[in-house]
Amino acid sequence: MRGRIVGFVREQGPVSRGDIGRQFSLDKKAVSLIVEELLSAGVLAISGLRESRAGRPSELLSVNASRGSVIGIDLGATHILGVLADLAGSVLERAWFEIRPGLPVDIIVDQMKSIGARLLGSPKKRGRVGRVGICVPGFVQQRTGTSLVAENIPGWRDVRVREIFETAFERPVVVDDSSRALAFAEKRVGHGRGVRDFIALDLGYGIGMGIVAGGALYGGSAWKSGEIGHVVVQPEGERCACGNIGCLETVASGRAIARRAQAAIRAGSSPLLMQLTHGSPEDVTAQDVGVAASMQDACAVSLLADAGAAVGMALAQAVNILNPAVVVLGGGLVGAGSALIDAVTASFQRFAMPGIREETRIEASQLGVDGSALGAAHLAADLVVSES
Amino acid sequence: MRGRIVGFVREQGPVSRGDIGRQFSLDKKAVSLIVEELLSAGVLAISGLRESRAGRPSELLSVNASRGSVIGIDLGATHILGVLADLAGSVLERAWFEIRPGLPVDIIVDQMKSIGARLLGSPKKRGRVGRVGICVPGFVQQRTGTSLVAENIPGWRDVRVREIFETAFERPVVVDDSSRALAFAEKRVGHGRGVRDFIALDLGYGIGMGIVAGGALYGGSAWKSGEIGHVVVQPEGERCACGNIGCLETVASGRAIARRAQAAIRAGSSPLLMQLTHGSPEDVTAQDVGVAASMQDACAVSLLADAGAAVGMALAQAVNILNPAVVVLGGGLVGAGSALIDAVTASFQRFAMPGIREETRIEASQLGVDGSALGAAHLAADLVVSES
Repeated sequence: MRGRIVGFVREQGPVSRGDIGRQFSLDKKAVSLIVEELLSAGVLAISGLRESRAGRPSELLSVNASRGSVIGIDLGATHILGVLADLAGSVLERAWFEIRPGLPVDIIVDQMKSIGARLLGSPKKRGRVGRVGICVPGFVQQRTGTSLVAENIPGWRDVRVREIFETAFERPVVVDDSSRALAFAEKRVGHGRGVRDFIALDLGYGIGMGIVAGGALYGGSAWKSGEIGHVVVQPEGERCACGNIGCLETVASGRAIARRAQAAIRAGSSPLLMQLTHGSPEDVTAQDVGVAASMQDACAVSLLADAGAAVGMALAQAVNILNPAVVVLGGGLVGAGSALIDAVTASFQRFAMPGIREETRIEASQLGVDGSALGAAHLAADLVVSES
Repeated sequence: MRGRIVGFVREQGPVSRGDIGRQFSLDKKAVSLIVEELLSAGVLAISGLRESRAGRPSELLSVNASRGSVIGIDLGATHILGVLADLAGSVLERAWFEIRPGLPVDIIVDQMKSIGARLLGSPKKRGRVGRVGICVPGFVQQRTGTSLVAENIPGWRDVRVREIFETAFERPVVVDDSSRALAFAEKRVGHGRGVRDFIALDLGYGIGMGIVAGGALYGGSAWKSGEIGHVVVQPEGERCACGNIGCLETVASGRAIARRAQAAIRAGSSPLLMQLTHGSPEDVTAQDVGVAASMQDACAVSLLADAGAAVGMALAQAVNILNPAVVVLGGGLVGAGSALIDAVTASFQRFAMPGIREETRIEASQLGVDGSALGAAHLAADLVVSES
């Protein structure tokens, strides 16, 4: 109960004692007892007063943000991004590397250590850094904190993330999948605040999805849920890194968009993209395509429209199955501009079931590229707060 | 806690006091207090003894099945099926009508009343019939017990099921969607017993899916989850009753199989089916196609294989997203023979993601056509037991 109350305050705070009582059907006395305990332990803090029409104003409670810090590190196929945050999840400092797809695993691990060390030594931290949250793409074994496989990072298999970084950082490490971390960030500080059932689509170099069901992260029986990137959308299409043919990722991931853009540049279809890549089509990224599309380059717009149409169709299927109240579109590609988002939305409207689609709110994430790292920090902060 | 303990005993019983303590992390004294209360209220009963290596044998507890009865009624597009069950969910009596698609709504309602009345008057009932569970296809509004729309029953819109049948049967009525009821039956007495995360596919005249997530029925934000029948599998295909084009139901539902069989018979492709329908192709059903397939009729086998392939593809998508431990294949079509099931399984293996598909157990439901009605009865029994 204590943990659930702290989670409620983290997500909905500032709240009054009365809010807590209503949320958990507890009487005044029970709430007072628990709250006093959490206040004297320094877990919660009084953060203000709320006027009430009758009687004394009520004290408002928040998580005691300055009691410590946490770090969240997000390993992507094209970046490593770290955030230092206080216990309320406010970002105090950022650090990142861009990496080239195909970098050896030990160099990736070293770069993650270096980001962690930089944040651990930051003068901006508040109190002790209690935990580190790390998120990685692909399958994660919860029990051991092992990253089983990340299809988009060659050679990345059975990496004992928790063990490696607990040794390196000398503090507890929590590990999860990047898309699930993104959904957790949306739940705490984004479009998922207070929403019982929602999904967060993670559109990046790969494509994943985090699911919140009944107010909690849903992982499935082996913590492998959310693999919407491997929904088959073109049965006669290209082979995917996972081994199947025609997965959504082969059509609509950042990787697929870049590959298609490269072919288009070589075919002479986009002089603008040729220019943006300084004449090196092999360097083109999905971000470049986004820039070109924002300048009305017809080829770039059509690449993003094709990708968005496929994403919208797969999204419609997920929504028909899950009936979420909100769909958050997140991940690096969301910053690539409106051509993609518009195509996703149009395709979703076409393929989702009438009676469901009208009631589904689609929102673009406001968390930018930080989303997953921030979510990892929030996962770490939850554990720090609940164990204290 | 009381309700959750009763649910645990219903699902896992017979269990000992120690089993309950371990499940809910309760100490011996707390368990004893609650169990004594439930025994003296007649909710639970002592059903046996379990030898233990050290000390006295432990008493085993079950739900007191004979304290009352419940009724479950399943409205399908081609049948109305009712079961009378005891509070442990054992079926005491069955009653059903086959109906023709297209029957007027008021006649359907009258037939449901008649089935309920027959079961209410059954000499086989044990104690009082406390509640009635009714399940219907399509969207159900939980709060009011209203069936919003059932695409496969023409004219069936905004039918106030709870109100109508509480008046008719003079006792509380609980209403849910048929596929969710099927999943609940699997959870209580089928392949879902003790499984935290599973899905039940409901293959009948229409196609639906019930989801159990974290041990509980998952409904989504508006209780509309599980619409796998409206996943679009043929974007250039036929128009569906829902308004979209190429939904799974247009290819693989009992309705679609019958329609395709009718065309095949008229084209002279299956003399056997012509014979089975006594020369009236317009009367052919998916069941007939199942019979013909079991007799190796090539046309029938190919109809079921096409349907199964589409179902398996949509199922793969649901499994990629939800990562259930078990998939139960249920509903009337499962009785149509192995050609369908084999095709579903093969297609699932082809399209589900490596790393997930190997860990997903696929089981054919053993509940036959009773599944949904039985689930509705279990939903009713849960309420009777938990309110007592």
